[in-house]
Amino acid sequence: MSFLGSHILSVQQFERQSIERLFTVAERMRPYANREKLTTVLDGAILGSLFFEPSTRTRVSFGSAFNLLGGDVRETVGVETSSLAKGESLYDTARVLSGYSDIIVMRHPQPGSVAEFAAASRVPVINGGDGANEHPSQALLDLFTMHQEMRRQERTVDNIRIAMVGDLKHGRTVHSLSQLVSLYDNISFVFVSPKALAMPEEITEKLMAAGHTVVETEDLAMGIANVDVIYQTRIQEERFISKDEANQYRGRFRINKFAYSQFCQPTTVVMHPLPRDSRAEANELDNDMNDNPNLAIFRQTDNGVLVRMAMFATILGVEKEVDRYSRPISWKNARK
Amino acid sequence: MSFLGSHILSVQQFERQSIERLFTVAERMRPYANREKLTTVLDGAILGSLFFEPSTRTRVSFGSAFNLLGGDVRETVGVETSSLAKGESLYDTARVLSGYSDIIVMRHPQPGSVAEFAAASRVPVINGGDGANEHPSQALLDLFTMHQEMRRQERTVDNIRIAMVGDLKHGRTVHSLSQLVSLYDNISFVFVSPKALAMPEEITEKLMAAGHTVVETEDLAMGIANVDVIYQTRIQEERFISKDEANQYRGRFRINKFAYSQFCQPTTVVMHPLPRDSRAEANELDNDMNDNPNLAIFRQTDNGVLVRMAMFATILGVEKEVDRYSRPISWKNARK
Amino acid sequence: MSFLGSHILSVQQFERQSIERLFTVAERMRPYANREKLTTVLDGAILGSLFFEPSTRTRVSFGSAFNLLGGDVRETVGVETSSLAKGESLYDTARVLSGYSDIIVMRHPQPGSVAEFAAASRVPVINGGDGANEHPSQALLDLFTMHQEMRRQERTVDNIRIAMVGDLKHGRTVHSLSQLVSLYDNISFVFVSPKALAMPEEITEKLMAAGHTVVETEDLAMGIANVDVIYQTRIQEERFISKDEANQYRGRFRINKFAYSQFCQPTTVVMHPLPRDSRAEANELDNDMNDNPNLAIFRQTDNGVLVRMAMFATILGVEKEVDRYSRPISWKNARK
Repeated sequence: MSFLGSHILSVQQFERQSIERLFTVAERMRPYANREKLTTVLDGAILGSLFFEPSTRTRVSFGSAFNLLGGDVRETVGVETSSLAKGESLYDTARVLSGYSDIIVMRHPQPGSVAEFAAASRVPVINGGDGANEHPSQALLDLFTMHQEMRRQERTVDNIRIAMVGDLKHGRTVHSLSQLVSLYDNISFVFVSPKALAMPEEITEKLMAAGHTVVETEDLAMGIANVDVIYQTRIQEERFISKDEANQYRGRFRINKFAYSQFCQPTTVVMHPLPRDSRAEANELDNDMNDNPNLAIFRQTDNGVLVRMAMFATILGVEKEVDRYSRPISWKNARK
Repeated sequence: MSFLGSHILSVQQFERQSIERLFTVAERMRPYANREKLTTVLDGAILGSLFFEPSTRTRVSFGSAFNLLGGDVRETVGVETSSLAKGESLYDTARVLSGYSDIIVMRHPQPGSVAEFAAASRVPVINGGDGANEHPSQALLDLFTMHQEMRRQERTVDNIRIAMVGDLKHGRTVHSLSQLVSLYDNISFVFVSPKALAMPEEITEKLMAAGHTVVETEDLAMGIANVDVIYQTRIQEERFISKDEANQYRGRFRINKFAYSQFCQPTTVVMHPLPRDSRAEANELDNDMNDNPNLAIFRQTDNGVLVRMAMFATILGVEKEVDRYSRPISWKNARK
Repeated sequence: MSFLGSHILSVQQFERQSIERLFTVAERMRPYANREKLTTVLDGAILGSLFFEPSTRTRVSFGSAFNLLGGDVRETVGVETSSLAKGESLYDTARVLSGYSDIIVMRHPQPGSVAEFAAASRVPVINGGDGANEHPSQALLDLFTMHQEMRRQERTVDNIRIAMVGDLKHGRTVHSLSQLVSLYDNISFVFVSPKALAMPEEITEKLMAAGHTVVETEDLAMGIANVDVIYQTRIQEERFISKDEANQYRGRFRINKFAYSQFCQPTTVVMHPLPRDSRAEANELDNDMNDNPNLAIFRQTDNGVLVRMAMFATILGVEKEVDRYSRPISWKNARK
């Protein structure tokens, strides 16, 4: 696919080549994200940021990425402030709001709503999450992070072994990400979850049909042994039939310093889509991992800015112009 | 009136000449709104956007218009986040907040509140809607749209026949718009509504005193026959004495493909202030009209950006400088 | 202290010299705040504005100050929209959100939370208010205002007599401000409050230990006689044991035209952190004072922009570059 002028609605749109082109662009965004210089390539462009379901990190990440390219952002947060609440159709909302910006990122609780909106929009629309359905920029930043982490080990994403842990049934991130990773060669997937929260069969079948290995287990220790990447997610108590059943699993899927040192190889990268729940009863990824150099969770969110800059630049056709509109920054970069 | 440095609080402020000057400026904004080039004429200026009552489309339209002229926007949405909730007077709010921006657009649920705020403000204030009272930028964009639509038919707004349909008693848009249109010559107004929701007598009398024709009817078919413009608005069930009465009228004031083909001439322009309620029980302007080229509702919202750009440019005295600060855009315009 | 790259969390950080350097920078910001020219010195920089507790004036003041230096602002308002609500630690929130901006201003209802956030942040953090604890930019703008007002009288802050009036027990502004003022020489503090709402002893002792005079009284007339500055604050009814006790004090701590003319010298400056409650039952600073030229409350809020611009400029190390990146504005300044 070509990103130029396109809606980005689903990971199904991508093939490996277009992803790798995007990642090359993302890599070239680093000096801007690091404030070594600035670019004004999107001067005069307006991002319409429509978060009909609130989200701080995704919303701010997209907004900052657009600002870093020199564009302006006009935001809307919350459905109660919108005409949708007064019975307006998504068609009308899209026709109207797409007249106010050059590109739109939209989050909405209802699966399929962003695609419906995009069909009526007069400008490109990026799906910022439509309920349980898709969140393609998250999957792209996760894959980009794997790509970067493997490169530090002088490897590629091909041939990696990845453990996905937690609620694999309801998590849109693991659904999207596993399909993206499957565009690479010879992946070994280990899906670690309670049986009731297993990865949907249609996905495991697709992965196997594409020639990858899939192992499913309820045993964390076995699941994360000898993997290159752990992708941890949240297990929510309300997903279980009873509190008793939840208690059975409580603690069995936690990644902490002890589990890592016991079961992982020393280079295993640990990822999580965040937010992680730090309260004692959840605590799926313990703070005692924070000084582990292979904990990649904050590199993930930083990479999110690069990947979103790359999406904007390619959709608006300026990926080759970014440097031409660059200049030095005049302030002292205080970022650590 | 001169727009330079003025508050814009009411349609009563305008005479025909100043409106036509504004529309000439709005017309010159089109290449910027269409992203054929960009301007930085308001570089360094800050719009204070104060929506003490939420509104997505009006708020974003003003914000985007200001961005398109090169300015920045600082927004406040919702009264619960403001000091007004802590017993602060509008006088104090105005003295303080007008110190933070160069021009203000304000919406507030209470009629008269924006004028009270403006009296204490140190910068020009545009009324973005004060309850049932006024919403002058909506009336201006509606009139500008009529102006444009008639020009496509090689006519002017003079001598047109316009049907206003729906709740004409409570709708601030039809009150303001009818008064603006009456600045043109020899208008035929047809007011189509249930008797209980008729246009207030003081307005019909004013229009007739100015030499225009006014016809009132409860019969949609008769009302929209041979008119140049239909301005449809919403009828809300809760306005009626009983559900039974509402049901009587339900459907009698709907504009759809059938009604249009039966009763209208082929050039009749259909407008609506939006949002339109697409739910079956309301549905005052049917989606089957969407491919009718005379349906002007999305041209209205697009024109809103032009008119608001023109308001900002004339109030801040740069209407002749816009092109001097223009340059090409560097990204690929993906707008359809 | 040096502001360069620093967190600004507490007034305890400052000594007199660093404050006076900041005020010199604030003074140089005036032509930009007055729109005599514009500067783009912070072009490409992003302010992360995190108001987990809403506040219109502080939020907009910081945002406008950053815009006036040429930077962009990405805002988050309300805790319900944030991951903190989903059990995320302040550590994680800080690691993530500090990746999206170059400097952060944060307000949060919980005392100490901003310092905890700052410890994990990768960019400088300004405390925009952490519950009852600190609000250093407010104290700085108040002190800057005294500085300016005394200069108009050809004096300095040294040797002034200042009356602080109202709820001195709970008010974070009077706690912070009294400590800042105490960095000057030979201050006479008069604390006027009901006994139950007196200034905490640890503060009065500190002030006396630093060589200043402290007088405490329940008598407004005596308290404000012969002072150079009155700093009025709010007394909230709910602070009292009973309604009866509140009624006793009601009216005894009001500043109005009558009290001013009876008890004050004609040059006494009247300040208030705002918002003031204009409802009859509170009314701690009457509107009949509004035309008194010594009422400095709106000069305070205007000065807030200057002081916050100075904070940003010194933290980001551009206080000497501001003029180099300046140019004329192209629009007609309509500010009164």
